[in-house]
Amino acid sequence: VVVIGQDPATQETIARRILVGAAGHRVQGFLYKLGIDRSYAMVNTFLYSVYGSGGEAHKNDAALVAYRNRWLDALLVGTHVEAVIALGMLADGAWQAWKATPSGSASALAYAHITHPTAPQSAGGSDSQIAAATRALLVNWNQALQSLKSAIKHPDTQRALVAYGTTFKATELVDIPEEDLPPGLPDWMRTSDGWAPRTGTTPAKKRRTITVTVPATVKL
Amino acid sequence: VVVIGQDPATQETIARRILVGAAGHRVQGFLYKLGIDRSYAMVNTFLYSVYGSGGEAHKNDAALVAYRNRWLDALLVGTHVEAVIALGMLADGAWQAWKATPSGSASALAYAHITHPTAPQSAGGSDSQIAAATRALLVNWNQALQSLKSAIKHPDTQRALVAYGTTFKATELVDIPEEDLPPGLPDWMRTSDGWAPRTGTTPAKKRRTITVTVPATVKL
Repeated sequence: VVVIGQDPATQETIARRILVGAAGHRVQGFLYKLGIDRSYAMVNTFLYSVYGSGGEAHKNDAALVAYRNRWLDALLVGTHVEAVIALGMLADGAWQAWKATPSGSASALAYAHITHPTAPQSAGGSDSQIAAATRALLVNWNQALQSLKSAIKHPDTQRALVAYGTTFKATELVDIPEEDLPPGLPDWMRTSDGWAPRTGTTPAKKRRTITVTVPATVKL
Repeated sequence: VVVIGQDPATQETIARRILVGAAGHRVQGFLYKLGIDRSYAMVNTFLYSVYGSGGEAHKNDAALVAYRNRWLDALLVGTHVEAVIALGMLADGAWQAWKATPSGSASALAYAHITHPTAPQSAGGSDSQIAAATRALLVNWNQALQSLKSAIKHPDTQRALVAYGTTFKATELVDIPEEDLPPGLPDWMRTSDGWAPRTGTTPAKKRRTITVTVPATVKL
């Protein structure tokens, strides 16, 4: 399975693996339901974090699209990949741009565009609005699970498909495999969130600055 | 060739490769003189950065030594390694601790303990004191080059040995190979220095905090 994400959050820039935070734990849980524990690759629409504009301004940059399509060719053409999952609209755009190429149009890979895993939080609002958005997300994800399940002929582990309920259960948030991160990485980098905010007193300084702090819960 | 360093500087903790800064460029230049461009592995005495004490307090921790010796066994026993280079006294201590093990005492590997590449800067003092310490360092490194040259039977590139003069020439500072760093790492992380200081107003906060800033010379 190949997962197409959006752009790296600051902590992912530091950990050198995309989807390590809250979104990552949700995606890892989605893959788990499909029987995928290690047979995946994850790539982003944007190699670097896009500050402020959210990527809309760059989504059609020809050089960027061409570079990304080389990665998608490498991952998807003549490999054992059985399905592609795009997280959110920019990732879906990346897939559509690849599908418009000769190698993309020749591909018969199963594909699902699912709601971005932290879309409810990104949209913000009251607790009840976030809960409603999460319920809608999980309906969307359940539909995708149904359509992808039959396409994945070689899962790492055969599991009966268990649909999501109306919230993420704790067991549906799966840790990032330790072997999928650089050696020596402290555990808190893959198990906690929010440890690498942008800092600085101006937007220009924030674009240049990330501050990494060991969580207070970790004893030094 | 295996290089044993000391502990990761903050920027090495972020770049996920040891010896990327000033010390790294000097070491890479030392390897170049030996004909080694890619056939090396680098490990540290300490997996994590040791704040304040400089490692003296932990150098004999039994669990740490045993763990490190497993790495040295993996790197040095029954492999194609032809020489080991230790940078500074703590790294030499790591080598001696391994040599005291059965597998270490059975090993006939060539070995050189050289002055730590940034020892002149670490010792501080006036410009002339740093220059004098650098001259002494390069005498020490020249001696090590002589003793190691004949031990390295399979360099990546055959090069006549060129000794150091009394200062590091610009050509003797060699860039870290791009392929030896995680994909997507911005160039400035391997070509510049000092971009990841500890920050915080107290020692306790400094132990927990690293601030990464894109150098002002890089256009965003």
